[in-house]
Amino acid sequence: SMDRAPPPASPAGLSAFVAVSQLLGLTLLATTGAWLGRYRGGVAWHSPLQFNAHPLCMVLGMVFLQGDALLVYRVFRHEAKRSTKALHALLHGLALVIALVGIIAVFESHRAKGIPDMYSLHSWCGMAAFVLYLLQWLLGCGFFLFPGASFSLRGRYKPQHIFFGIALLVLSIASCLLGITEMLLFKISDSYSHFVPEGVLANTLGVMLVAFGLVVGYVVTREEWKRPPLAEELALSMDFKTLTEGESPGG
Amino acid sequence: SMDRAPPPASPAGLSAFVAVSQLLGLTLLATTGAWLGRYRGGVAWHSPLQFNAHPLCMVLGMVFLQGDALLVYRVFRHEAKRSTKALHALLHGLALVIALVGIIAVFESHRAKGIPDMYSLHSWCGMAAFVLYLLQWLLGCGFFLFPGASFSLRGRYKPQHIFFGIALLVLSIASCLLGITEMLLFKISDSYSHFVPEGVLANTLGVMLVAFGLVVGYVVTREEWKRPPLAEELALSMDFKTLTEGESPGG
Repeated sequence: SMDRAPPPASPAGLSAFVAVSQLLGLTLLATTGAWLGRYRGGVAWHSPLQFNAHPLCMVLGMVFLQGDALLVYRVFRHEAKRSTKALHALLHGLALVIALVGIIAVFESHRAKGIPDMYSLHSWCGMAAFVLYLLQWLLGCGFFLFPGASFSLRGRYKPQHIFFGIALLVLSIASCLLGITEMLLFKISDSYSHFVPEGVLANTLGVMLVAFGLVVGYVVTREEWKRPPLAEELALSMDFKTLTEGESPGG
Repeated sequence: SMDRAPPPASPAGLSAFVAVSQLLGLTLLATTGAWLGRYRGGVAWHSPLQFNAHPLCMVLGMVFLQGDALLVYRVFRHEAKRSTKALHALLHGLALVIALVGIIAVFESHRAKGIPDMYSLHSWCGMAAFVLYLLQWLLGCGFFLFPGASFSLRGRYKPQHIFFGIALLVLSIASCLLGITEMLLFKISDSYSHFVPEGVLANTLGVMLVAFGLVVGYVVTREEWKRPPLAEELALSMDFKTLTEGESPGG
């Protein structure tokens, strides 16, 4: 009908970058699966292959889903903020559950094989990433989803939430690179330096993890691609400003 | 005298964060030195210890000096842009030279010991970081130091330069973490899982590298801490805008 505005267009380039990020993300999962399936005997739970659930869960949860959760404000830029926020929290929550399964896999597999836990730099960085990610999710829910936090408190926390959100994706990817290096030096230390296919495949997975982080980081930090406030959100925040202007000492 | 304005104050918090970054940076260097000196026989050039020059040069050049080069626009926020820019380029140039020495150390040490080059994920990430860092430096000099580039071209390149500058510091730090993991698994693979002091020290170095990246990243991305244009720069850019406004079709 005549009163319906045409759907607003996304900025040029954004769609292409988002498409590349998704292609990279799916290729990450396929490459991890190929590595584990072709060279490491596959993935299973109650078996000596339980360890292999660890890399698959971490790449899916702590990289692909965590990255996609950051992208929702760019991809659904013209949807209501309320639903986009819910999707953001939901994707991060799903990522946390999958990452927890991946962490259980490595602890159970260590116990079955008598290997000590938490001695390596990979485990320190990875556990820090997971614990801080859980904390960030709880703080995010507390500040932005539940109605208790004031408008100005949300405004002050938001830049911190964004900075640490990107930092946690980066730390998660760095932990994956450390995990790849550990696994190669545990399993193929004799042949790695001869450029055997498994080593080249796993290195390529590492490079693609870096590329995924770069593309997601670029999309979420680019000023022109930030989500514009909807007309009704602007009206609401102006009403709110008028209502509260008397309260704050700064004016 | 009465016409001199008092020196402008830095924003609260900025000085503390910069001080922490410098303490962390110096501790990084001391810890790297302690690791190499206490557990790896020290550092020397024409000797089997030549390899040990590699971690020391990379932490000094690709992390500490690269990080400090990003901080100059925050630390010298009230100096003329021209001198701050020159210092930024100089620190990055020094970082590149020191990193080159570190790269030569590992290639010569590999040749002496008959170890193949460039097979590991550490070498792929580290070499990518170095080559892209050199490219970024050349592009930065071309766009911002030499007088050829137009005002609008500089304006369009600047956000890319900032994004990739931060990304390269992150990639450099990730490469250091991979190098630490490789070195521990090459040298103390049997005792690493028993929490021997060398392993704990090197892991701690890794955690401090992450902390340095976090602090520098926080300082350079915080909106309120961005360098304000000086009065004369504002006047100049407004004159410039008036002069060129007729030229650009966008208005």
